[in-house]
Amino acid sequence: MEVLRTNDEMSKWREERYRKGQIVGFVPTMGYLHRGHLALMEEALRRADEVVVSIFVNPTQFSPGEDLDQYPRDLEQDLKLCRDLGVQAIFAPEVEEMYPSGFQTRVQVEHLSQNLCGLYRTGHFSGVALVVTKLFGAIRPHLAVLGEKDFQQLVVIKRLSKDLNLGVEIVAHPIVREPDGLAMSSRNKYLSEEERSSALSLSRALLAARNMVTEGERRVDVLVARAKEMIEAEPHTRIQYVQVVDEETMTDIDEVTPKAVMAMAVFVGQARLIDNMRLSPSLPCLSSP
Amino acid sequence: MEVLRTNDEMSKWREERYRKGQIVGFVPTMGYLHRGHLALMEEALRRADEVVVSIFVNPTQFSPGEDLDQYPRDLEQDLKLCRDLGVQAIFAPEVEEMYPSGFQTRVQVEHLSQNLCGLYRTGHFSGVALVVTKLFGAIRPHLAVLGEKDFQQLVVIKRLSKDLNLGVEIVAHPIVREPDGLAMSSRNKYLSEEERSSALSLSRALLAARNMVTEGERRVDVLVARAKEMIEAEPHTRIQYVQVVDEETMTDIDEVTPKAVMAMAVFVGQARLIDNMRLSPSLPCLSSP
Repeated sequence: MEVLRTNDEMSKWREERYRKGQIVGFVPTMGYLHRGHLALMEEALRRADEVVVSIFVNPTQFSPGEDLDQYPRDLEQDLKLCRDLGVQAIFAPEVEEMYPSGFQTRVQVEHLSQNLCGLYRTGHFSGVALVVTKLFGAIRPHLAVLGEKDFQQLVVIKRLSKDLNLGVEIVAHPIVREPDGLAMSSRNKYLSEEERSSALSLSRALLAARNMVTEGERRVDVLVARAKEMIEAEPHTRIQYVQVVDEETMTDIDEVTPKAVMAMAVFVGQARLIDNMRLSPSLPCLSSP
Repeated sequence: MEVLRTNDEMSKWREERYRKGQIVGFVPTMGYLHRGHLALMEEALRRADEVVVSIFVNPTQFSPGEDLDQYPRDLEQDLKLCRDLGVQAIFAPEVEEMYPSGFQTRVQVEHLSQNLCGLYRTGHFSGVALVVTKLFGAIRPHLAVLGEKDFQQLVVIKRLSKDLNLGVEIVAHPIVREPDGLAMSSRNKYLSEEERSSALSLSRALLAARNMVTEGERRVDVLVARAKEMIEAEPHTRIQYVQVVDEETMTDIDEVTPKAVMAMAVFVGQARLIDNMRLSPSLPCLSSP
């Protein structure tokens, strides 16, 4: 497995694969890899000849006051996990390599970035769009595998790749959950045992809303109220939002449709957790590894 | 010569060249080709194995009230000129192919876009950055040849390619002028005979400023005043700006430096013309074919 540190090294690696006619797969990450990431890599390995994983805690997607500094990092362990899985290359640039002095370009996917997390994380999705454009530029993968936990991010990146002709097929992977339902996230590390128990209310509330839909409820306000109630009943929780949106446009809806997704962001202790679920009874419910 | 109409056709063409290990050169244009464009193509043909020329009047780089609708077009003549020169492919997409329904991504090179034309043409350089990102994405050329007449555009695109890791070497080509000094431009078509005569004041004013620098003048306000005076002495002229900036940062300077460029935009009749010249006596003066 090669570990590449600069854009030039990355392009050179990619050009060699291109000359051999190989299909290059890509999984972008901020490191501190968990089983959710590994599932994305396995999917990429199934679809591509060679797979690059990027490990880069991207400062431009953190809002002021967020957890950029304490975001968990463990490069050595990450490299071991990737090597054991059979990943061919790691792209792990320094911040100065990605944003050198004089850097001044912005990328913005407008409407899709506005609702949900976009309402609370100022500049987050421009930061995501920027780093993904750069990573896609340096790596030029044929496909990239992204997780559905970062659901709005997935939709934004799909649009970005199409709008800017980046030529990358975006493959969505279902949320990977712990056996008790907690969506896997590097930020789960922030949770105390008691907070982790409270954090289970997110997936339980999503599941409850989904069950209400199965039983005939279509009013979004009723579903949201019930979900909030379940989360607020637990200690250490502070809801940022619980919303139901159309999964393509990211706009709020009043009545459940086949494209309805309930999405939420909740602080549990210091950890800001997100989760989401499709509400339509015709779709798979809780995804697992 | 192949004429490609869609992004998919373009990518397919490019992939075939990549598989053969060929160097792809690119000249972006809005068509209505003149000898200036042909010089860019010749440069690209010298440096690359195969050359793509794009012909696309990009609506997103026109400000409201500008000449988008009357911008001159003659695709048949353009194709003939390219074919005669030995260009291998034309990329001529429709507006709907480049900006389909749902399109919503913006690209912005911040500081470099603000001064000069950026002060007057609202959104112009975001439109340029956007279309160039898309064209570079669809074509993925190794190099692109751009003219120095659109001097700020050249600097913006250099920054863009670097900032977004687009991997395209930007080659600058000197301004190509008519024998009497008029910088070649598709918009010269708008000029009546009398206006064309007035339009010569632009290059004459630049040359006069440069001569003053050669003779020792370093005060920018004196140089700008003289240039404006010469242009205003002609009928049908209306100055938008005459400025002296640093050629790398695009910021105004008070004293002439080795990186000083005088840049101007002047309406002559209905035509908005731009021109520029390096002021340092150590640099070549009036470029020609």
